Amino acid sequence: MKIAIIGAGSSYTPEIVDGLLDRPVFMPLDVALYDLPEGRERAQIICALAGRMAAKRGVEARFRVAASLEEAITGCSFVVSQFRVGLLQARIQDEKMPLPMGLLGQETTGAGGFCKAMRTIPAALHLAHAMEACCPNAWLINFTNPSGIVTEAIQRYSSIRCVGLCNVPYNMRVDAAKILNVPIERVRLKMVGLNHLSFVTEIWQDGVPVLQRLIDEGRFTTQLVKNIPKVEGVSELIRTLRMVPSPYLQYFYFENDMYRKEVAEVEQGKGTRGEQILRVQDELFGLYRDEKLCDKPRELEMRGGAYYSTVATMLMAALLDEQGMEMTVCCRNGGAMPDLPPEAVVEVNALVNRSGVHPLAAGRMPDSIRGLVQHVKAYESLTVEAAVEQSYSKAVLALLENPLIHGYRNAVSVVDQLQSAFPQYVALH
Amino acid sequence: MKIAIIGAGSSYTPEIVDGLLDRPVFMPLDVALYDLPEGRERAQIICALAGRMAAKRGVEARFRVAASLEEAITGCSFVVSQFRVGLLQARIQDEKMPLPMGLLGQETTGAGGFCKAMRTIPAALHLAHAMEACCPNAWLINFTNPSGIVTEAIQRYSSIRCVGLCNVPYNMRVDAAKILNVPIERVRLKMVGLNHLSFVTEIWQDGVPVLQRLIDEGRFTTQLVKNIPKVEGVSELIRTLRMVPSPYLQYFYFENDMYRKEVAEVEQGKGTRGEQILRVQDELFGLYRDEKLCDKPRELEMRGGAYYSTVATMLMAALLDEQGMEMTVCCRNGGAMPDLPPEAVVEVNALVNRSGVHPLAAGRMPDSIRGLVQHVKAYESLTVEAAVEQSYSKAVLALLENPLIHGYRNAVSVVDQLQSAFPQYVALH
Amino acid sequence: MKIAIIGAGSSYTPEIVDGLLDRPVFMPLDVALYDLPEGRERAQIICALAGRMAAKRGVEARFRVAASLEEAITGCSFVVSQFRVGLLQARIQDEKMPLPMGLLGQETTGAGGFCKAMRTIPAALHLAHAMEACCPNAWLINFTNPSGIVTEAIQRYSSIRCVGLCNVPYNMRVDAAKILNVPIERVRLKMVGLNHLSFVTEIWQDGVPVLQRLIDEGRFTTQLVKNIPKVEGVSELIRTLRMVPSPYLQYFYFENDMYRKEVAEVEQGKGTRGEQILRVQDELFGLYRDEKLCDKPRELEMRGGAYYSTVATMLMAALLDEQGMEMTVCCRNGGAMPDLPPEAVVEVNALVNRSGVHPLAAGRMPDSIRGLVQHVKAYESLTVEAAVEQSYSKAVLALLENPLIHGYRNAVSVVDQLQSAFPQYVALH
Amino acid sequence: MKIAIIGAGSSYTPEIVDGLLDRPVFMPLDVALYDLPEGRERAQIICALAGRMAAKRGVEARFRVAASLEEAITGCSFVVSQFRVGLLQARIQDEKMPLPMGLLGQETTGAGGFCKAMRTIPAALHLAHAMEACCPNAWLINFTNPSGIVTEAIQRYSSIRCVGLCNVPYNMRVDAAKILNVPIERVRLKMVGLNHLSFVTEIWQDGVPVLQRLIDEGRFTTQLVKNIPKVEGVSELIRTLRMVPSPYLQYFYFENDMYRKEVAEVEQGKGTRGEQILRVQDELFGLYRDEKLCDKPRELEMRGGAYYSTVATMLMAALLDEQGMEMTVCCRNGGAMPDLPPEAVVEVNALVNRSGVHPLAAGRMPDSIRGLVQHVKAYESLTVEAAVEQSYSKAVLALLENPLIHGYRNAVSVVDQLQSAFPQYVALH
Repeated sequence: MKIAIIGAGSSYTPEIVDGLLDRPVFMPLDVALYDLPEGRERAQIICALAGRMAAKRGVEARFRVAASLEEAITGCSFVVSQFRVGLLQARIQDEKMPLPMGLLGQETTGAGGFCKAMRTIPAALHLAHAMEACCPNAWLINFTNPSGIVTEAIQRYSSIRCVGLCNVPYNMRVDAAKILNVPIERVRLKMVGLNHLSFVTEIWQDGVPVLQRLIDEGRFTTQLVKNIPKVEGVSELIRTLRMVPSPYLQYFYFENDMYRKEVAEVEQGKGTRGEQILRVQDELFGLYRDEKLCDKPRELEMRGGAYYSTVATMLMAALLDEQGMEMTVCCRNGGAMPDLPPEAVVEVNALVNRSGVHPLAAGRMPDSIRGLVQHVKAYESLTVEAAVEQSYSKAVLALLENPLIHGYRNAVSVVDQLQSAFPQYVALH
Repeated sequence: MKIAIIGAGSSYTPEIVDGLLDRPVFMPLDVALYDLPEGRERAQIICALAGRMAAKRGVEARFRVAASLEEAITGCSFVVSQFRVGLLQARIQDEKMPLPMGLLGQETTGAGGFCKAMRTIPAALHLAHAMEACCPNAWLINFTNPSGIVTEAIQRYSSIRCVGLCNVPYNMRVDAAKILNVPIERVRLKMVGLNHLSFVTEIWQDGVPVLQRLIDEGRFTTQLVKNIPKVEGVSELIRTLRMVPSPYLQYFYFENDMYRKEVAEVEQGKGTRGEQILRVQDELFGLYRDEKLCDKPRELEMRGGAYYSTVATMLMAALLDEQGMEMTVCCRNGGAMPDLPPEAVVEVNALVNRSGVHPLAAGRMPDSIRGLVQHVKAYESLTVEAAVEQSYSKAVLALLENPLIHGYRNAVSVVDQLQSAFPQYVALH
Repeated sequence: MKIAIIGAGSSYTPEIVDGLLDRPVFMPLDVALYDLPEGRERAQIICALAGRMAAKRGVEARFRVAASLEEAITGCSFVVSQFRVGLLQARIQDEKMPLPMGLLGQETTGAGGFCKAMRTIPAALHLAHAMEACCPNAWLINFTNPSGIVTEAIQRYSSIRCVGLCNVPYNMRVDAAKILNVPIERVRLKMVGLNHLSFVTEIWQDGVPVLQRLIDEGRFTTQLVKNIPKVEGVSELIRTLRMVPSPYLQYFYFENDMYRKEVAEVEQGKGTRGEQILRVQDELFGLYRDEKLCDKPRELEMRGGAYYSTVATMLMAALLDEQGMEMTVCCRNGGAMPDLPPEAVVEVNALVNRSGVHPLAAGRMPDSIRGLVQHVKAYESLTVEAAVEQSYSKAVLALLENPLIHGYRNAVSVVDQLQSAFPQYVALH
Repeated sequence: MKIAIIGAGSSYTPEIVDGLLDRPVFMPLDVALYDLPEGRERAQIICALAGRMAAKRGVEARFRVAASLEEAITGCSFVVSQFRVGLLQARIQDEKMPLPMGLLGQETTGAGGFCKAMRTIPAALHLAHAMEACCPNAWLINFTNPSGIVTEAIQRYSSIRCVGLCNVPYNMRVDAAKILNVPIERVRLKMVGLNHLSFVTEIWQDGVPVLQRLIDEGRFTTQLVKNIPKVEGVSELIRTLRMVPSPYLQYFYFENDMYRKEVAEVEQGKGTRGEQILRVQDELFGLYRDEKLCDKPRELEMRGGAYYSTVATMLMAALLDEQGMEMTVCCRNGGAMPDLPPEAVVEVNALVNRSGVHPLAAGRMPDSIRGLVQHVKAYESLTVEAAVEQSYSKAVLALLENPLIHGYRNAVSVVDQLQSAFPQYVALH
């Protein structure tokens, strides 16, 4: 089986290499690593590490750095997309720019998430169109953030089959299993919403619904996702909602707290999350270079992204299997969530098997979350159109529909700053 | 595990007994057989046969005839409903009554299906209400026809979890596998519609869609369901629809042909399908009585209902399993088919596992079948209400929405004849 | 104001001339009469009569026969479409062809209505496209039958603003006023459904709802539309439905009776409705030729089409008025009937004023009529597509969705007979 | 005709008195003025003034202060509701309380609007239930703010026919007529959305759509509603939206500006809007007491509420008329806006006549406003339920769905402060 990893210079890559090497179903394996010139050297380092990891395990797996995108993807069954347009420097800009306006600086939501989407969508569509030519039947496994928005762009403007993935749903299942103190295989979650805006509306243990009992018992005290700071009050919020929101919903439900935390980290010299990761990344590549290293280093866990590799390989294995399995993924709505347009991409439970991704009918959302989700979905779909059409006014309209932007003046300012900071990626008219 | 079979005096019962004994997951097994007084003797015969079948295989399974419904269902995990109100005599009446009006006489569609539904729904709700008291967490596996309508009645007027089953979807998958000449495990079908009014809208072989190619190649020449006579023209119909209709759709698409066949069978002395089965049934019970018989007899296959036991035990196994499997079942729509009301029961693909039955979002139907399915669904939902409310006018309204009834005068006549033929079961006001 | 009448050779034309001359709001009036060569002579006769009618009243109105379609419509505010492709001979063929198959032979429903639609849609689109070039802001007032289907074709495949009209809704309001014994101005009806498939779901007298009381009192005993034979049982049907169906619904609810009446009329030598009208038409043109005739002759009423002129001029007057008025018309659904697709044309109450036609939100239909209306709408929309694409298979699919066709074999036969009878109008592939 | 005015002690009342006396259709007129004990004296003053106004015009109109609610409403055709629970003191509290939290302090939106709704809904339902007993066929004309939310409460929890009214839509039509420089009768607006959250999506002059041209010409430079401060940027916003938002949308699109203006007014000693009105009100009652005053004083215009009387009497006249007229009102959605639940109350164009209020099908909203409107509607519907059920958690959930609240902590704080400030009106559990 042939797999291409686009954006292979990421420090995450050894995670997915590790996951691939773990599954015999993928063998013999041929992995093409691809990155832009600025990431090529890091891709080489990882390629060498991957080779050592395969050799240590004695599995039949080949890794190579591809000279071109076309070379990387031709003949592939899966293309894993995990690139970052503008690298961490762009992320840091996304995180810092909104703060003086009193707005959250976050990678995937609010102003920062918008900027990232606007830079990323053209590149993601470039990849999808290349796949239409070189590997039209391959699956595009999209980890590139903001995953839901990017997946919607590909879904609506390309014929390539694409699934958006995120490690949050799996992390929440891990959390639930810990709370219930049973193996994860005995725990099923129902999730509805959008990427980084999803809600667990039921949890089953051995087929028995237990969520309301767990809430009554106050069992949801912490959020375990590493890269999101904890806030007080989540437990009370869950008791009010009678559902468990994704940790990313802290940016909506605890906007002020999250803003203050961000400002404090910058003021205290800790830097934004992006700046912190930049340091971690340098350390990691230092380790990767070590020719004695034949495993992913334990330090990689500090990078966040727990279970990234688990969900990626689980999804690929399911897409190769007749029976397949149920997973929470980002896919075309198609009526699964009747409160949202059918062509929108949503994050829901789906049966994934080798005939495709089949979302389960999730039914209507309760009033208590419906409005927020509809609001953010309208923002997302407008962002896709703004990027595809490179339309200045659609970009502003998108931000007017984003409840974290707070109005017209901020919307205009964010769009203007995006344009002036990234003229190489964004040319609105 | 404890299972109750309601209507256990049916000649089909050894089929399901056979299926249960085949699956180790059900052991140790305790099966309560229940029937009304008029079926009690046949239930006894089958109970003895079932005991011999279990003994021959050496599995840990106990069969007994329950003295009361409550005794039968208390403590059950599954209740299998396969009863027939008024026995085959009522079916024969349903088949014969419409013929002089120029209407089809068929067990589950048209005038006959309506009469059966009106007799059956009160009894089905009686069972469901007994389950609410005696085994509120049990699953009701409903084979009782008309399966979609009966399941909708239970879904809307009871808190019991109920799945409607039919062997047609599995038969169509078997057919597809034969046409493709591959094992059934490699074939996936997407079905949409209602019970006995469903359409195969895609077929995958090894995950690759092949339906349009098969149609172009003219591979759908016959319908294999035993109890439905063949007609000319099905192949051309499929080429026009670009889908494969359930064989029961012959009653809609070839109404005149089917009517003529029915009349001819009666005139030629062959009798209606019900009369034919009555004879088969007598022969079968003759065999069942034989104390040397320790297997289901081969003659049972003549009875129709192929794979009845396969789907029943497959469903029960899936409902016990964390991963579960995909099946085509009758369940609450819940948005899976956005062209139909969410509370309606539809026949669609669903992921079945131990947390329940989760229909896959099927999306909108094409115009070419949407109107017919919506029309018949309106008939079905009104029939449920007519039976629950014992409303004469709703009964007529239901038939006005049935495209096989052809108007007001027939509708009134069918309702009047139903009332006068079955005063013990129907008391409309 | 300039108005064009397309199909001006119709014996109906003096009706609308009479209506136009009655309304000062239209003066000074310039009417272009247009017909194909075969109708040109009749158009001339009518033009002379119209001139005499105007002269007698002393109003400022000019009538002329246009030499070309372009000449007729250029500069118009309104184009009234009332043509009949193939003339009455084609209608008679539509009425007779289905009878040997046991199918209704009717001008606008069933097999006959389908054939008429297939012949008419290309001509109607030809007119609409000519209007796009010559009078893009004019309103197309469509009386050409089947009015709902033809209007949907124009709505979906042209940019011309089009309203479909029928005299049935106004006739039903007249009937209601007679039953209530009050002037029509004090009576309001709510109608939902499709053209020739509509239902009165409420009647208000002086703003007070009275329909249920009228039904309880058995006040709906007859249907007054002239060209539809009466049947027994309508009163009981209304009591069951708790609504008043359009008289055309007799073809659905009393299919057998209507069929027998049609066959009897043919067998008794009375001829089909078309043949009867052919005779009336000859008599009418005999009268029209009389140079002493300066009014529409009383014999015109026998032609059917009562209030044809009333609704046409009422609509045009409303489309010129800022306040406008409420009328029941055929227009784009746009969500007014949420059970039907938004782009479908439906027959509903609308506020008509000079900014356009604005349907009132009608809400969901009750189950008792919803299925039938959805079924027929699917047939209609497929017919539009079949005619536009000249697609043989879509034509068959359309008829498979028509509940008066009864199956595949009839569907194929109707399409084949249509093709062979009218090769000059229909060329399916 | 008998009319009751509930909350008659309002300084607005002479406005509506003036409007009633202007329309002969209401004569002879019998107006019952009702207020709670604390407003009784002011009602007496107004009653005397109203008598003098009627005498001066010489029309047949009687005014009296009713001793009880039941006395006031019995026999009425219309009940005009314009009360203010807790009087201006409560409004001032609503305006001040949110400011320290950084939240807008506004009477009908955000935290303040929520508090007002929570105090008002029980009183509004008390009135509606009294009407069910005393005048079940009367129309309730609801001016009581927040008008859309209060109307939804009555619509969902009472059988009384209720229309919510606001002067904003008429003011926007006045503005449009000024911009076009034509009489208002020649101008039609299409509005969609919610009360105080509506958008003009088209403007017709003499039936011709002109909105896009007006926007391109930059003709929407100011918002004319008196009680909303002007902000810079509205013109640019309109050019981006391609629609004209209600001036109340400034609270959403210019949240920061509006907040700063509010804080500034308080800090500069001008006081909140409520405090300013309190002063105006005292002056007005000084004038009203003057026995020589026989007209509404010109100073009343400073109070805001321009055209309040125009729309109220226009609506009542339409509800008495068979033809009626088109107005923008708050009414049950019923599918007019398919993006919102059918049972929600929306603000849309409707045909109003004596058979009722019939919203026009408005169709789907564009993405650019859909999310915001859906979000706020979810907040509104939850607020209705929170007030009816007196549910603490629903109150918090409502505020979580309000995009002006910014999170859980503020939501809880607003609910807690509401409870402690108004224990006589709110008792959540």
